[in-house]
Amino acid sequence: MLSKAQNKYIRSLTQHKFRREFSAFIAEGDKIAKEWLQSAAAIQHIVALEEWAVQHQALISNHPEAALHIVKESELSALSALQTPNQALLVVRMSTQEMALPVDEWSIALDNIQDPGNMGTIIRIADWFGINHIVCANECVDVYNPKVIQAAMGGHLRVQIHRTDLSEFLSGSKVPVLVAALNGSNLYSMPRQQAATLVIGNESKGVSDSIMQLATHKITIPRRGGAESLNAAVSAGIICSHLLPA
Amino acid sequence: MLSKAQNKYIRSLTQHKFRREFSAFIAEGDKIAKEWLQSAAAIQHIVALEEWAVQHQALISNHPEAALHIVKESELSALSALQTPNQALLVVRMSTQEMALPVDEWSIALDNIQDPGNMGTIIRIADWFGINHIVCANECVDVYNPKVIQAAMGGHLRVQIHRTDLSEFLSGSKVPVLVAALNGSNLYSMPRQQAATLVIGNESKGVSDSIMQLATHKITIPRRGGAESLNAAVSAGIICSHLLPA
Repeated sequence: MLSKAQNKYIRSLTQHKFRREFSAFIAEGDKIAKEWLQSAAAIQHIVALEEWAVQHQALISNHPEAALHIVKESELSALSALQTPNQALLVVRMSTQEMALPVDEWSIALDNIQDPGNMGTIIRIADWFGINHIVCANECVDVYNPKVIQAAMGGHLRVQIHRTDLSEFLSGSKVPVLVAALNGSNLYSMPRQQAATLVIGNESKGVSDSIMQLATHKITIPRRGGAESLNAAVSAGIICSHLLPA
Repeated sequence: MLSKAQNKYIRSLTQHKFRREFSAFIAEGDKIAKEWLQSAAAIQHIVALEEWAVQHQALISNHPEAALHIVKESELSALSALQTPNQALLVVRMSTQEMALPVDEWSIALDNIQDPGNMGTIIRIADWFGINHIVCANECVDVYNPKVIQAAMGGHLRVQIHRTDLSEFLSGSKVPVLVAALNGSNLYSMPRQQAATLVIGNESKGVSDSIMQLATHKITIPRRGGAESLNAAVSAGIICSHLLPA
């Protein structure tokens, strides 16, 4: 059972303002809840169906700091941002650890990514390719948005996500700055890079002019068909698969 | 102005059942509305803000078959499936043209793709790489779902989308059947293919066993990090970029 106040608190975390105020966010769904419970993250609340809680007793007991609430399906779906039926929802504390920006290793830099699905998918791509850092421009969508958490599939646990002034970060870069653009050189002719920063631009406007000026290489995925552009996350995935060390 | 009946009709098209009954679907948003108006598709209704309609008079006059409705922002957003403010919404008739399944050219086959965003993004990928056919298993999400139309960015206009029994289609295939899997051979060692069918599986379960048995090649995108898997559309994009003729 959840108290009225707890219910209100958890619901408030769908809003950026309250996530920031309380330094907490929601991670939900069977797969994602398990990923977070397997980690050392500080969990505040575990809200779950009885069957799920029984089945995952061992994982839950890893987190004595968390309050466990067994609820009915209707209570859970009232809290949920997901459309499909859910089994568990966690409230997780944001880590307050200060993280140093990447200097001489691979990173993905995001210039104003607005779609939470794209943001989460890019975090998942970094996680797949072993890229340890994502550097978000201050204008990007909040990376603790429930849809970002959903699409990242636990990527937040392994990828360090920074938020900073992107121009400043790129100006000080010691590695090649690769910008995905529609008029760059052919991706397929480029050798794999030991270290680099890959810059992905806004979904409709692409990379802003001030950031484009900081590119050491502009790269294009060769087009054979009629589409005007590729999805931002798909472009990031394609470029990573060609340029990361194999 | 829209009549009550027209309003009800357009709203009904957010549901699969009514799209099928009326053989019509919604295409909305500035960019996508322009793409469809530029095409020879049969448009039933154009619902637009006055400013937008004035600005796109030439495009609109290409479609004398369509009824034009100038509406206020509130009327438009009541019809819209989009979260961000919208300027135009079209009701488009489905094409009834019979299309032959691909025999000896590139295609992407989808085994039970459920997420409309993924479906649309894969259509956009096919459109970018000049793949003319997508073959959907009967179980896939409806390709005229508004979110699919949105994510495909006009791809429906250039890519032929089939819905059929996937086992039957693949059994008769005359080109290599490449299946994206987690235990296949290294994508980076595979040569580009003149023609092939790339099979992408369900978001959580992957490719079903019966389809897997029809694979001539299982291929894997090498992993360097901790993620369990990649997003289905991202995988499709990566594989296309490595295996289509350059």
